[in-house]
Amino acid sequence: MNLLYAFDLLGTAAFAASGAWAGVRRQMDLLGVLVLGVVTAIGGGTLRDVLLGDTPPFCFEDDTYIYLSIGVALTVFVFHRYLELIAHPLLYLDAIGLATFVVIGTQKAISSDASFIVAVTMGVMTATAGGVIRDMLSSQVPLILRKEIYASACIAGGALLYAGDAAGFNPTLTALSAATLVILLRLLAIRHNWSLPRAGRAENSTPDKRIE
Amino acid sequence: MNLLYAFDLLGTAAFAASGAWAGVRRQMDLLGVLVLGVVTAIGGGTLRDVLLGDTPPFCFEDDTYIYLSIGVALTVFVFHRYLELIAHPLLYLDAIGLATFVVIGTQKAISSDASFIVAVTMGVMTATAGGVIRDMLSSQVPLILRKEIYASACIAGGALLYAGDAAGFNPTLTALSAATLVILLRLLAIRHNWSLPRAGRAENSTPDKRIE
Amino acid sequence: MNLLYAFDLLGTAAFAASGAWAGVRRQMDLLGVLVLGVVTAIGGGTLRDVLLGDTPPFCFEDDTYIYLSIGVALTVFVFHRYLELIAHPLLYLDAIGLATFVVIGTQKAISSDASFIVAVTMGVMTATAGGVIRDMLSSQVPLILRKEIYASACIAGGALLYAGDAAGFNPTLTALSAATLVILLRLLAIRHNWSLPRAGRAENSTPDKRIE
Repeated sequence: MNLLYAFDLLGTAAFAASGAWAGVRRQMDLLGVLVLGVVTAIGGGTLRDVLLGDTPPFCFEDDTYIYLSIGVALTVFVFHRYLELIAHPLLYLDAIGLATFVVIGTQKAISSDASFIVAVTMGVMTATAGGVIRDMLSSQVPLILRKEIYASACIAGGALLYAGDAAGFNPTLTALSAATLVILLRLLAIRHNWSLPRAGRAENSTPDKRIE
Repeated sequence: MNLLYAFDLLGTAAFAASGAWAGVRRQMDLLGVLVLGVVTAIGGGTLRDVLLGDTPPFCFEDDTYIYLSIGVALTVFVFHRYLELIAHPLLYLDAIGLATFVVIGTQKAISSDASFIVAVTMGVMTATAGGVIRDMLSSQVPLILRKEIYASACIAGGALLYAGDAAGFNPTLTALSAATLVILLRLLAIRHNWSLPRAGRAENSTPDKRIE
Repeated sequence: MNLLYAFDLLGTAAFAASGAWAGVRRQMDLLGVLVLGVVTAIGGGTLRDVLLGDTPPFCFEDDTYIYLSIGVALTVFVFHRYLELIAHPLLYLDAIGLATFVVIGTQKAISSDASFIVAVTMGVMTATAGGVIRDMLSSQVPLILRKEIYASACIAGGALLYAGDAAGFNPTLTALSAATLVILLRLLAIRHNWSLPRAGRAENSTPDKRIE
């Protein structure tokens, strides 16, 4: 399980960077940037634990997540002028974080005897709720409601993990396959600019001005 | 209790339709519409269960709510062009859902030995929090904070239910009376365009532009 | 503990007033003003209790908080034209509330064996989350993310409380010192208009229009 923990910290760091970065772009001050970084990194897993009744949540049991998020957000705040240099690697780290969070969330729900739809929802929520809270705190329509391939990749990964577990496949192999599927879908979606169908395209095509 | 369950599913479907409809109007894509539909339908009851410490919440115990919400939201997404044909019946279904959710939420709080104000709050929250989350996710000032007869009807119904229970009246009759009161107040409010007093009417009467 | 309870109610009243006042300024109607008042007053403590797994939350166990908040919010609604007369004393009450909530939240986390960073976070959250929810409900970027000396004062107080507890100092004295530190920092920050550094000051210096 040490490898999973390493990936978990990697994902936490990537998510903290994305949250802090959102704060910097909106010209928040130091504390705002730290709060957005921490909330984005641990919000999804915390909400999952609250809903599963598993309180205090994971990040209260193991301080590493909070300290790591604070450290990363602080780094982003200080070096934000040079951040564009690592924007590309950050996308890959973000995809790895997404995949890890889906695997951890789905597995945790399965071990609480959750049904298929609940397990997949918990996997997706672990991976995406931090970003949703980040966007709500910045008073934006959450990204997940606008560019949903992000969440669709998580759904596919969570479903594969649940199916593999139900079929009794090797857990490590199942988790690796699910994670690979999420990363693959996510990176393909970025490269090919995939998107899902949208309702009411015809009339009123001017985008909401408040959406960046 | 089978009748209550049937009404509960009816209300869930009506709320999912209203959430999905909000997503369609804001031109969200498929997943955004599904998320808004599900969250609107189950958000109130889930928040209630989390606050009462009754986790995992009802919708994790019985998958029907999530699948039903997804099905309804999908239908709204596909057939959204024809939705105005059923806008009128939808208002009645929404009122029935409101009434049912108030009854279920208040009853659940009473059976946890909640006091009057907590029981009424839980009833109102079960009926309205889904819509509040829907509006926060769409980055709007929640409807409940703007057109409050909606919640006032729930308060009246919850109070009647609590009083009837405290007085030892027949539970089924009490529940039916409370539900009828909610539906009646809600439909009368729509027909007569009722609203509560508002502060600071005089100066600055231009409405906030961000409020639709 | 009676003094702490008295301060707690004082803080609850001050926070309810600030929430209701936000509703009045946005011309919400009666129920909107009441909801904002109650949520601002009890939101932080409720979120803390949910995260610590201590449900039902404090305000369900002791009705006083909800009734007091409703009463204060109602008073603000009715007398809002005269509220500016007490804006100055309200700032002091708000600082006292902030300090009390930090002390209560940090103490509660310590007694759940929380680590340093979790205890401080719980103290800050108890004091600030109500205001964050108030701002999210009014569709604003939360104040805490914009004027963070508010939260920084809470962090300092919570850290002092944790350190004093760990060092085995007299609990009452430690609590008083922590509360005094919060109040002092808060009032000094108001008087001297303190603020933390901000990223990306140079370009794009026009403030976000949606921020009041």
